Amino acid sequence: MKPMGTIPAEFSHAPLRIAGETAEHWADVAGDTPLFVYDFGVVAARIARFRAAFSGVDLHYAIKANPFGPLLDAIAPLVDGLDVASGGEVTWATRRKTPNAISFAGPGKRDDELELAIRAGITINLESAREAERALRIGERTGFTPRLAIRVNPELELRGSGMRMGGRASPFGIDADQAAAVARQVIDTGANWRGLHIYAGSQALGGLAIIEAQRATLHLAGDLAEAIGVTPPLVNLGGGFGIPYFPGEQPLDEMAIGNALAEALDDRAHSLENTRFAIELGRWLVGECGVYLTRIVDRKESRGETFLVTDGGMNHQLAASGNLGTVVKRNYPVAIASAEADAATETVSVVGPLCTPLDRLADRVTLPVAAVGDLVAVFMAGAYGLSASPTAFLGHPAPCELLVGITGS
Amino acid sequence: MKPMGTIPAEFSHAPLRIAGETAEHWADVAGDTPLFVYDFGVVAARIARFRAAFSGVDLHYAIKANPFGPLLDAIAPLVDGLDVASGGEVTWATRRKTPNAISFAGPGKRDDELELAIRAGITINLESAREAERALRIGERTGFTPRLAIRVNPELELRGSGMRMGGRASPFGIDADQAAAVARQVIDTGANWRGLHIYAGSQALGGLAIIEAQRATLHLAGDLAEAIGVTPPLVNLGGGFGIPYFPGEQPLDEMAIGNALAEALDDRAHSLENTRFAIELGRWLVGECGVYLTRIVDRKESRGETFLVTDGGMNHQLAASGNLGTVVKRNYPVAIASAEADAATETVSVVGPLCTPLDRLADRVTLPVAAVGDLVAVFMAGAYGLSASPTAFLGHPAPCELLVGITGS
Repeated sequence: MKPMGTIPAEFSHAPLRIAGETAEHWADVAGDTPLFVYDFGVVAARIARFRAAFSGVDLHYAIKANPFGPLLDAIAPLVDGLDVASGGEVTWATRRKTPNAISFAGPGKRDDELELAIRAGITINLESAREAERALRIGERTGFTPRLAIRVNPELELRGSGMRMGGRASPFGIDADQAAAVARQVIDTGANWRGLHIYAGSQALGGLAIIEAQRATLHLAGDLAEAIGVTPPLVNLGGGFGIPYFPGEQPLDEMAIGNALAEALDDRAHSLENTRFAIELGRWLVGECGVYLTRIVDRKESRGETFLVTDGGMNHQLAASGNLGTVVKRNYPVAIASAEADAATETVSVVGPLCTPLDRLADRVTLPVAAVGDLVAVFMAGAYGLSASPTAFLGHPAPCELLVGITGS
Repeated sequence: MKPMGTIPAEFSHAPLRIAGETAEHWADVAGDTPLFVYDFGVVAARIARFRAAFSGVDLHYAIKANPFGPLLDAIAPLVDGLDVASGGEVTWATRRKTPNAISFAGPGKRDDELELAIRAGITINLESAREAERALRIGERTGFTPRLAIRVNPELELRGSGMRMGGRASPFGIDADQAAAVARQVIDTGANWRGLHIYAGSQALGGLAIIEAQRATLHLAGDLAEAIGVTPPLVNLGGGFGIPYFPGEQPLDEMAIGNALAEALDDRAHSLENTRFAIELGRWLVGECGVYLTRIVDRKESRGETFLVTDGGMNHQLAASGNLGTVVKRNYPVAIASAEADAATETVSVVGPLCTPLDRLADRVTLPVAAVGDLVAVFMAGAYGLSASPTAFLGHPAPCELLVGITGS
């Protein structure tokens, strides 16, 4: 028997209800299984928690975490900015937010993507000196003044983050010791300099590490601003707020981080006096709102183990199968949707329909006894879920996505 | 500096040519980058090698390895059967092959998929006693006699295979000690019994292990046939033939395997005297035919390392980024497509455009010095490539796929 992560509090009652309704209700609404249900109430509560903890700091949503259209529609009015990472995301963002609230990061922007962004008037976070030259050239050619920020690859790293993006040789951003020179070049060429973007890591669950990284980021931004000689209009402090997927992981205390950041902001360098600050979040805002529901189509014993075989798996929820950036396979929280709290339990593995041993959603977990036809709920499916999964793998149909929990839905 | 796998012989000349043309030529044909180019000449040569080594044994193509339509059109006439793993694949296969040459495996077949297969007259490889009951019930309800084979979960395992699928508790197949009883039930109910499917593992590069597994499979099939008391019309011996992705790996010697199998077939049990045999291959047939071409959009130095940033990455070639079933990230073979054989070299990392450190196609490899605008070729992209990748991740457009190397193309 192996442990699994903790079911988010919003969904921890049995039988499962999502926005007040049963899982079967949402499967009916979708018309088929598998499906993703995103409870917007969970997202709205997260945004409220951010506002309470980070007064005066802008909140950006990183679209790549979950680009589902209705979710973007609902989030956009509640956040201060949208961060995008491709030409496709530029298009989705510009439909929902004014250009000056959108910024575009990513190490491999093509010329056509840069031009799309420059014409749309959104901010480009420059990842290299060469990208700066390309953007300036496109600005000149098109007659649009580019809005440009410098993404900095800091010396600091975010300790304990699931993916470190600073403190090392990296495709992301301009090394800190060259950032000021590129910023000066951008400013001198007459582009609209929007400031700095400093992103040290992601999926961090150590509050102290985040506090320390934010403090170091502020220091670095202050030093850079002084070297550049122009106040950066905005400093994007990055994000990196993790959520607890796995056994033993604890959620972040965002109030502690917010309080520490407020102190650090009070002490910030003179060169940042008139700067706005933003935190860019994806996973922390939407990760816990999502539940993936998949129906049990077979239940079988093999050599003393029990398998629940579901109609969806790694083709829709790659991360839960342990095949997206994780070295050791650990169990996401899962549940039998219709089971009562006092149901008898058993040890089972939940496997998807694909003809590969990689397609395992839960490995030898203790769950209520389930039958063919029951729905399995896989939690933590709101970020890097469907859009980060190989949906065409083995030719199954795409699952439905539902945004629920908005007044009236 | 880290090593990379060996470039397949068909593509090992510099500058790269695919079916006699340059990579830039194929990018022109596609109209944009990134793109996948599948050289059908490589597939046809593989099929010919199979025929030479495995005289009298049927060859099945496992569509899941690469379901690109034009590739299926070209392969179907050259193989004896198509193996499918979902309702979608059933539809693609029935357009290209008579029903009695198609079989459907997979642990999570839904009722609608079973019904589709039964009405189409294709063989269902039953994965559990419960699935047998469901198929028989659907046969009764629809008035179509189901064609049913038993997929067996053997005691044996394929040693050294990349993914073991036998020798353990498994969602795949019916445990060997229960297989005869289910087969009897199927036969007694009047279904059209098609035989046995025994699949011990995949991506194996040890020829002796495959020989041993095939021998054990034949033994098991003989014992089961005797227990069942009816000659199985077909025994699908599985596949599992690997291809060398990584440094130090050697290709299989299929002639040695074929010779050993011929011997084993000569000695087979009396109960299998009138049985046909098939080997089911996906990766071995098409894996090496595919080249993923992606253009360098940036070239940057960071803390002493050089990065080539390309316009495609793990969103199209997840396996090459080390995020599909591999624990340790190793380098697929890659090349700078236009580089001459005697070009000066350097150590670089090739990274895709996604805003995640997971998006790395090659880690500190030695390549000819390359510039922005050059094409990078990632080899071994013909199987479990595009269809097994999260194409929607970060909102980039889907890449083009080209089938080339057919007379006239």
